[in-house]
Amino acid sequence: MKSTAVLLIDCPDRRGLVARVSGLLYEHGANILHADQHQDHELGLFFMRVEWGIGPADGGALDEVGGRGNRPADAFDGNFDLDGFRAAFAVLARELNMRWQLTSSARRPRVAIFCSQYLHCVADLLHRSSTGELDCEIPVIVSNHREVESLSGFYGIPFEYLPVTAAAKAESEARQMALLEQNEIDLVVLARYMQILSPAFVARYPAAIINVHHSFLPAFTGARPYHAAHARGVKLIGATSHYVTDLLDDGPIIEQDVARISHRDQVEDLVARGRDLERVVLARAVRWHLDRRILCYGNKTVVFD
Amino acid sequence: MKSTAVLLIDCPDRRGLVARVSGLLYEHGANILHADQHQDHELGLFFMRVEWGIGPADGGALDEVGGRGNRPADAFDGNFDLDGFRAAFAVLARELNMRWQLTSSARRPRVAIFCSQYLHCVADLLHRSSTGELDCEIPVIVSNHREVESLSGFYGIPFEYLPVTAAAKAESEARQMALLEQNEIDLVVLARYMQILSPAFVARYPAAIINVHHSFLPAFTGARPYHAAHARGVKLIGATSHYVTDLLDDGPIIEQDVARISHRDQVEDLVARGRDLERVVLARAVRWHLDRRILCYGNKTVVFD
Amino acid sequence: MKSTAVLLIDCPDRRGLVARVSGLLYEHGANILHADQHQDHELGLFFMRVEWGIGPADGGALDEVGGRGNRPADAFDGNFDLDGFRAAFAVLARELNMRWQLTSSARRPRVAIFCSQYLHCVADLLHRSSTGELDCEIPVIVSNHREVESLSGFYGIPFEYLPVTAAAKAESEARQMALLEQNEIDLVVLARYMQILSPAFVARYPAAIINVHHSFLPAFTGARPYHAAHARGVKLIGATSHYVTDLLDDGPIIEQDVARISHRDQVEDLVARGRDLERVVLARAVRWHLDRRILCYGNKTVVFD
Amino acid sequence: MKSTAVLLIDCPDRRGLVARVSGLLYEHGANILHADQHQDHELGLFFMRVEWGIGPADGGALDEVGGRGNRPADAFDGNFDLDGFRAAFAVLARELNMRWQLTSSARRPRVAIFCSQYLHCVADLLHRSSTGELDCEIPVIVSNHREVESLSGFYGIPFEYLPVTAAAKAESEARQMALLEQNEIDLVVLARYMQILSPAFVARYPAAIINVHHSFLPAFTGARPYHAAHARGVKLIGATSHYVTDLLDDGPIIEQDVARISHRDQVEDLVARGRDLERVVLARAVRWHLDRRILCYGNKTVVFD
Repeated sequence: MKSTAVLLIDCPDRRGLVARVSGLLYEHGANILHADQHQDHELGLFFMRVEWGIGPADGGALDEVGGRGNRPADAFDGNFDLDGFRAAFAVLARELNMRWQLTSSARRPRVAIFCSQYLHCVADLLHRSSTGELDCEIPVIVSNHREVESLSGFYGIPFEYLPVTAAAKAESEARQMALLEQNEIDLVVLARYMQILSPAFVARYPAAIINVHHSFLPAFTGARPYHAAHARGVKLIGATSHYVTDLLDDGPIIEQDVARISHRDQVEDLVARGRDLERVVLARAVRWHLDRRILCYGNKTVVFD
Repeated sequence: MKSTAVLLIDCPDRRGLVARVSGLLYEHGANILHADQHQDHELGLFFMRVEWGIGPADGGALDEVGGRGNRPADAFDGNFDLDGFRAAFAVLARELNMRWQLTSSARRPRVAIFCSQYLHCVADLLHRSSTGELDCEIPVIVSNHREVESLSGFYGIPFEYLPVTAAAKAESEARQMALLEQNEIDLVVLARYMQILSPAFVARYPAAIINVHHSFLPAFTGARPYHAAHARGVKLIGATSHYVTDLLDDGPIIEQDVARISHRDQVEDLVARGRDLERVVLARAVRWHLDRRILCYGNKTVVFD
Repeated sequence: MKSTAVLLIDCPDRRGLVARVSGLLYEHGANILHADQHQDHELGLFFMRVEWGIGPADGGALDEVGGRGNRPADAFDGNFDLDGFRAAFAVLARELNMRWQLTSSARRPRVAIFCSQYLHCVADLLHRSSTGELDCEIPVIVSNHREVESLSGFYGIPFEYLPVTAAAKAESEARQMALLEQNEIDLVVLARYMQILSPAFVARYPAAIINVHHSFLPAFTGARPYHAAHARGVKLIGATSHYVTDLLDDGPIIEQDVARISHRDQVEDLVARGRDLERVVLARAVRWHLDRRILCYGNKTVVFD
Repeated sequence: MKSTAVLLIDCPDRRGLVARVSGLLYEHGANILHADQHQDHELGLFFMRVEWGIGPADGGALDEVGGRGNRPADAFDGNFDLDGFRAAFAVLARELNMRWQLTSSARRPRVAIFCSQYLHCVADLLHRSSTGELDCEIPVIVSNHREVESLSGFYGIPFEYLPVTAAAKAESEARQMALLEQNEIDLVVLARYMQILSPAFVARYPAAIINVHHSFLPAFTGARPYHAAHARGVKLIGATSHYVTDLLDDGPIIEQDVARISHRDQVEDLVARGRDLERVVLARAVRWHLDRRILCYGNKTVVFD
């Protein structure tokens, strides 16, 4: 993997935005690897994601599928001046009324995983992280149960047991938030974490808490969605990953998937089938977030693929 | 295609049901072509579908995929005594507290199609009917618009224009129901018919009115579901076919399917993608109903495939 | 629908391509509606599609889903100088070694449909064309069978019956090609047309003949793929739309889809299920081609969505 | 979970098979939980799976979704005479020329997992086994690499490192087969095991070795299927689980699934997407085998769901 920078932009739409941004990158010598735009014509908004090389590869061994022998010679840039570009871009962004993030792969995002007693999602995320599929640090796993402790140990990740009771919920959250501060967490992943976060917690991490809900939202919000799906007699079940907002199960949807069921499937079959959906839907959302492919606007997401 | 009989059963579960039913069929010499059972262990219910040969093939030319040369010689039965079996089975059914339907392919179901101005579903059903994929008679097409008239003409099916106004809704329905009576209709298919049927109409055709709703129910009930899906920012859209009951969009679900969308898709893209879902989801439901594969119980369906 | 221009580009990758193209469009006052790029890093190739407004809307009535009331005021441009831009772009394209196509929605593509005795694909295309989903003219339908004649008549499209025999194949093709010439055909759609076109025919329409093959290519090339799929015992069947090249069933794949089957499905069930796949897979390919979303390179396609 | 027996049957089709089998079960007092039949009319074959209760539940705690409070009182049978039934059934089976297996959940199948350096499938199977989703014993994990050693340790499963070299392949296989013997293995799962088993090995475990191939078979057999899929430009990738036979990648297919890709996906993206398919497709096959839902005939499977 090579070092890259990613620029995410959203702003009011107007003529010449692509020309202005790509022109500035060209002036600074950027070798663009990926560029993607989107316009919401109804709302008059423009969205853009650009990724370009900023330094040599990190020297890791090539994996089995590598061997990109005939990549153009200049694809690995040695000395892109990211700070210089940042300063120049800030001027342009102000002029064009842009919201923007400019990040470098040199800093790996730091992720905290929260879970309760069901471990399929956390086990999946840890495995993917261990194989390099998720490019992040995971400095801490937080749970109100002890089931995840040995798994955390296997992957060498500190585990924090923070039971949550109705009486002492505020105190528990204060300890959680202190942990996140200490560990400089960028992203919180709720991997089937069964507690509802307070508005104060949510407000502290806007578009930086990802949850997986075990239904095809907006159907079957709230508790026990597989029971509700079974009772309604649906023919497909689903899972949804989304950013957490104040309204329960109502945040911007990142990814959804479904699986076919039949009258033969009891609730426990839905639970089992659903676990496969939850894993995949959550993992995709986390990967896209880490790759800075997601832009939120209103209550929706743009996911550049 | 050969002549077959289909027996559909539901009853309280108890030991020996399969043995009793299959034993009686065996005594009467039935050559079972398909048999399927289902037990709802929670509710203690038993469901069964059996299909067997009752007479020679109808003599139609073999289609391209035919040529089942090595079918056992006795698969085409000449003389199953359906009336005799019916009388014997009625005794058993009473003893075992069964609800049951025994139908013969000798009588083709008679279907009325209702539509409004969008023709994709009705065009699809008519094409499938013309190719033999749907084994039914369609003696009448009813619409509150005139768009379907030329299509009806092309397929040689009588078209009845019955405008529906708020003021004269009861009168319109009375005319519709008279048409259904005259044409001895067994099944009403609402192929994007934009009017809501009265409780009296619905009560007249229990589990015999199939509707297609352009969302993944129970999400986005009611009007303009594609607009609602777009506003919520879902990543998959769906369509649902179901039996019509008194509660709008709440009847037993027969089939559902979904398609992936992205932030690039505007409402009109959802409408276009959704048409393909609606067609397929409605056509499957109608075919399964005509093949007597569906049993309703509570607010759900068993679909024997 | 409004008048737009589409520019499709492929060329060797190098820095500044997006900046150069978008800069030129900006200079000419283009209001970009959609822009998409792709880089094949292995082969060092760059692909781009840009669409922008060139004139007022065509004045057609807004459809049910329209109502884009808050679109920016300048979205409908009155007077983009397409010829001027074309001349300027030709200079740039020469410098950067680009292959390119610049087309305007003012000229609707002209499509010939070829079919044999199975009508599900042609019926589907004609219905979609009649509802405006496919933005093209269909001046002629060609078949070596007569089954499609009445359908052609219903849609008011001239039908040409051209039987093909082994002995007179060259003569038949000569007549076909003359028909295509007379009708100024841009795209030939083989909607389950059961004859193999000669290399000379194929060479005459590079990347302009779309076929649908009733399997998930490259599995089950050649004749009777559903029989082959049934014999192999696969659990999913597929369909593939592709551009026609000299090698049978080997051209660049445009779209594929699959459906789940089970041991219960006989060959005729696969045929029936497959028809739904074929329709959708072919219709998508035709729509994307008409919207100029497809670039061929090597034996592959880039499909900008 | 309760104790159940499963009877799997295949035989030439004839009248009365269901009646005979279900009658015998009824005589012996069986409470049938699931019954399923299939007839292959082309080949004149009959297949049946019946599952019934044979003893009290195993006393495990009810899981979260349990609570089947209103199950009929007689669903948990205390004393089904399995040996008596087996003796009686053997007589019937001989008369009707049946092949059959009668198994009891009292004996949990014993599974050996073989893998090489890629661990996603084995990690997935071990996690599913640990949560009870796969009802089996896993007494040994065998690999020609050491990567799986710590994972084996975490789950407390003996790990056997058996390097395979071309020179000493026969010797390695002899040691593998000895291990399988010692551990009384019923099922061998090749979880991305990169060595080809000899015909002698395969012959020793007919329909008892499950492999996952990382393509949608029969497309892309052999090595490096993702490279081949990328080269061909397919729009969907797949994975296939199948029983191993002498012919490479040609055994009876148990399950297949696909995922959509685009021109943006490089080979390494296919590899990453494919891992999710491989996991699910292999896990389903193993679960269905353990639940004795699969019957092989010819080169195909019947999978009762």
